[in-house]
Amino acid sequence: MKIIIVGATGTMGTYLVKVLENEHEVIKVASKGGDISADITLTESIENMFRQAGAFDALISTAGPTFVGPWSKLNNETFRTGVEGKMMGQINLVLIGQKYINPKGSFTLITGALTDEPQVNFANASAANGAVEGFVRAAAIELENGIRINAVSPTVIEDSPQYFPYFPGEIPTTMRQLECMFRKSLFGKITGHIIKP
Amino acid sequence: MKIIIVGATGTMGTYLVKVLENEHEVIKVASKGGDISADITLTESIENMFRQAGAFDALISTAGPTFVGPWSKLNNETFRTGVEGKMMGQINLVLIGQKYINPKGSFTLITGALTDEPQVNFANASAANGAVEGFVRAAAIELENGIRINAVSPTVIEDSPQYFPYFPGEIPTTMRQLECMFRKSLFGKITGHIIKP
Repeated sequence: MKIIIVGATGTMGTYLVKVLENEHEVIKVASKGGDISADITLTESIENMFRQAGAFDALISTAGPTFVGPWSKLNNETFRTGVEGKMMGQINLVLIGQKYINPKGSFTLITGALTDEPQVNFANASAANGAVEGFVRAAAIELENGIRINAVSPTVIEDSPQYFPYFPGEIPTTMRQLECMFRKSLFGKITGHIIKP
Repeated sequence: MKIIIVGATGTMGTYLVKVLENEHEVIKVASKGGDISADITLTESIENMFRQAGAFDALISTAGPTFVGPWSKLNNETFRTGVEGKMMGQINLVLIGQKYINPKGSFTLITGALTDEPQVNFANASAANGAVEGFVRAAAIELENGIRINAVSPTVIEDSPQYFPYFPGEIPTTMRQLECMFRKSLFGKITGHIIKP
């Protein structure tokens, strides 16, 4: 299977590349480095990335910039980090990528527990996650040629302990759990699901 | 209670004005007409509206432009109708309005069943709704001075029968149900809830 991993140099992406590249052809996409560089906040950059990658069977996204910070700093400008990044960045990966993906291919986007379990400082991520999850459910009934779409929704990631203090009481998602969640979307047949640990 | 109703000239807004204005001071806000005109896609217009309205106890929004149409027409440009309208328009009503609302006041935004129950042609609304619902849950733990926030999430509205064919199998929300949902948010004490029929 030819799999594009967007956000391939981040904590989640690095792990997923490692566990998938022995069995599959993996194309690493990142803002810097990787096999192809792309800025997912720009549709032209996304389009260029897909042209370079060529037809593929699955796209995994772990890319999700959002504004993290005190509520007093949240306004129309700071909110755009998540709107253009984790929300429209990932939505445009699908809207554009559907022209390049093989029949019966799959898109797997990233959201997170913050959709339903808010934490202080993360309202922008809660909104972006909610948008992506609503989109995933809707896209699942619209995409043609057997193309599937799901979202993986972890809690705070085991390999990002610097975030633990911001997620009191949240049981961290292990890297092995994260891998399994992506495998369920990639190699199973479900579509329109929000996959939780 | 002094209540600002944004979207006061629409189907839902007209009904809510009628049932609330006998008991309360209602300020009608609409893109055209009403007591105050405002374009919720522009932060300056929102700011002007709040300055004109003065301090208030509750804001109800029924304003939610989104792109409705075939999946093939959905792209980064058309998606912006819902991003700037139903999503950021309503989120900015809260981010800006929190400076003008009285302590213990409340915001009640509008989402809809499409968040979880997608229908063909409405992916933009599903995403915008999901964003607003994620935001409402997060804002509820951030807002200060006892200010509350909820979302009302109806199905297709009884008084909009022209939409019934697009919502097969969806039991329409009656205007009386809609009124009760808004009353629960306005006069109850809940915060961070998505109120369903």
